[in-house]
Amino acid sequence: MTAEKLILDGNRVAEEIKDRLKERIARLSDQGIVPCLATILVGDDPSSETYVRMKGNACKRLGMESIRIDLPESISTEELVAEIDKLNADPGVHGILLQHPVPSHIDERAAFEAIHIDKDLDGVTTLGFARNAFGFADYPSCTPAAILAILDYYRIPIEGKHAVVIGRSPILGKPVSLMLLNRNATVTTCHSRTVQLEEAVRLGDIVVAAVGKPKFVRGDWIKPGAVVIDAGYNTGNVGDVDYDECLQHASAITPVPAGVGPVTIATLLKHTVDAAEKRA
Amino acid sequence: MTAEKLILDGNRVAEEIKDRLKERIARLSDQGIVPCLATILVGDDPSSETYVRMKGNACKRLGMESIRIDLPESISTEELVAEIDKLNADPGVHGILLQHPVPSHIDERAAFEAIHIDKDLDGVTTLGFARNAFGFADYPSCTPAAILAILDYYRIPIEGKHAVVIGRSPILGKPVSLMLLNRNATVTTCHSRTVQLEEAVRLGDIVVAAVGKPKFVRGDWIKPGAVVIDAGYNTGNVGDVDYDECLQHASAITPVPAGVGPVTIATLLKHTVDAAEKRA
Repeated sequence: MTAEKLILDGNRVAEEIKDRLKERIARLSDQGIVPCLATILVGDDPSSETYVRMKGNACKRLGMESIRIDLPESISTEELVAEIDKLNADPGVHGILLQHPVPSHIDERAAFEAIHIDKDLDGVTTLGFARNAFGFADYPSCTPAAILAILDYYRIPIEGKHAVVIGRSPILGKPVSLMLLNRNATVTTCHSRTVQLEEAVRLGDIVVAAVGKPKFVRGDWIKPGAVVIDAGYNTGNVGDVDYDECLQHASAITPVPAGVGPVTIATLLKHTVDAAEKRA
Repeated sequence: MTAEKLILDGNRVAEEIKDRLKERIARLSDQGIVPCLATILVGDDPSSETYVRMKGNACKRLGMESIRIDLPESISTEELVAEIDKLNADPGVHGILLQHPVPSHIDERAAFEAIHIDKDLDGVTTLGFARNAFGFADYPSCTPAAILAILDYYRIPIEGKHAVVIGRSPILGKPVSLMLLNRNATVTTCHSRTVQLEEAVRLGDIVVAAVGKPKFVRGDWIKPGAVVIDAGYNTGNVGDVDYDECLQHASAITPVPAGVGPVTIATLLKHTVDAAEKRA
């Protein structure tokens, strides 16, 4: 007989976040303001298309506006930046989300930097990243913030715990490492060049997988009783964690789908409402 | 009989960095340009006074200019920012260093942010920090850069090693963690709330102490053969590491003084020359 496992239900966390937004959206509506998120999709990658559509639908369901800008694969960095500048200048747009990844001929960093800090709801600009790293961001990166929201919702302690993050991307691995550090976890950040990765992951009371490889994290890498957060999302609705295996060792785990994903979207909506209120 | 210990001689590393600057300073001089570092000291803390004087002397010895601005303890944040703005506007000033710490009534973050990114030679602004975190800073924080310079000078491999950083300040612990991560180390960041600190430090192939507590790191915390970098400097010329104890376990170690300190200053001089060349 095994101990009871806690399945960290992202839909539940997301619903709570969205429920709290309803009244705020209604108050804004009374002032004639509709929170508006603009998403930019370059090219026609089918998963990116799905994400953008999900974000748009989520806005609509809450009575928020979403603007979707579809740009051809062939667009140049300069043209993309010009599109972003139009959205920066539009007072009706409260947040700008450039769907990652962009085609490889585009300078993604330059495009991210073009987003005005007041509309950078996902911490993609250097300034947004650093404010987050120092603990005073208005809009921390959505997926890292979602991970903390899940831990907090389920009252999983962070302070003094050893958190192991697998991944070091500017939008996920690095910011979530810094946010966990700011919440007083001891943080180990691993990546593709980590030697003895299994041993490193086994240190974690909290393990965050942000690798981008399906079922990458195996069950016997997990310290018995650890909390496993799967921030991956790969083709075929599969996370970065081998769920069935890790479930055997973990005390709590996020599933994929219905784990981090919906909370990320809810966090993005929350940031859009925050931004709309700031300019109300 | 114990294995031979490598004492990482910061003076040697610093001399090499400064030697390489001489020709560059001479070339600038031919164009009528003297690299100039402005340091600001608020109040009359004696150790801060010493640091500022050392930086000024180091500039002078290389034929560089240094401007020293002494401000009274009672100055307000606004007045300090106004002083920084004057230096931002001065085309003869290539870098601005605000000596940390400032008196507690001053908003240090606001003061740091006032430094123009082109003159932020120590990565103290949010923008400088983030560029460093993403690996494309012109001027990474000097002490973290000095630590990497020492490791590189002595050809100590970083990639694939487990680095443990004790400390998470915005100017030292966090940037050095990110720089080691960008150099493909697996990085664990510890701090005052870390539980079982000794065990965490014992993971480190490379241990960086940036705690600000004299002789804080004890010998038996060090994995046999690890490389110990002492970035601390406390009253009485004492580092954050118990040198005699740690020497027994380490394969290589920086002393205090003559370890990280002189390399930090040499790095600051190098950044000043870099900045002067950029505007030549």
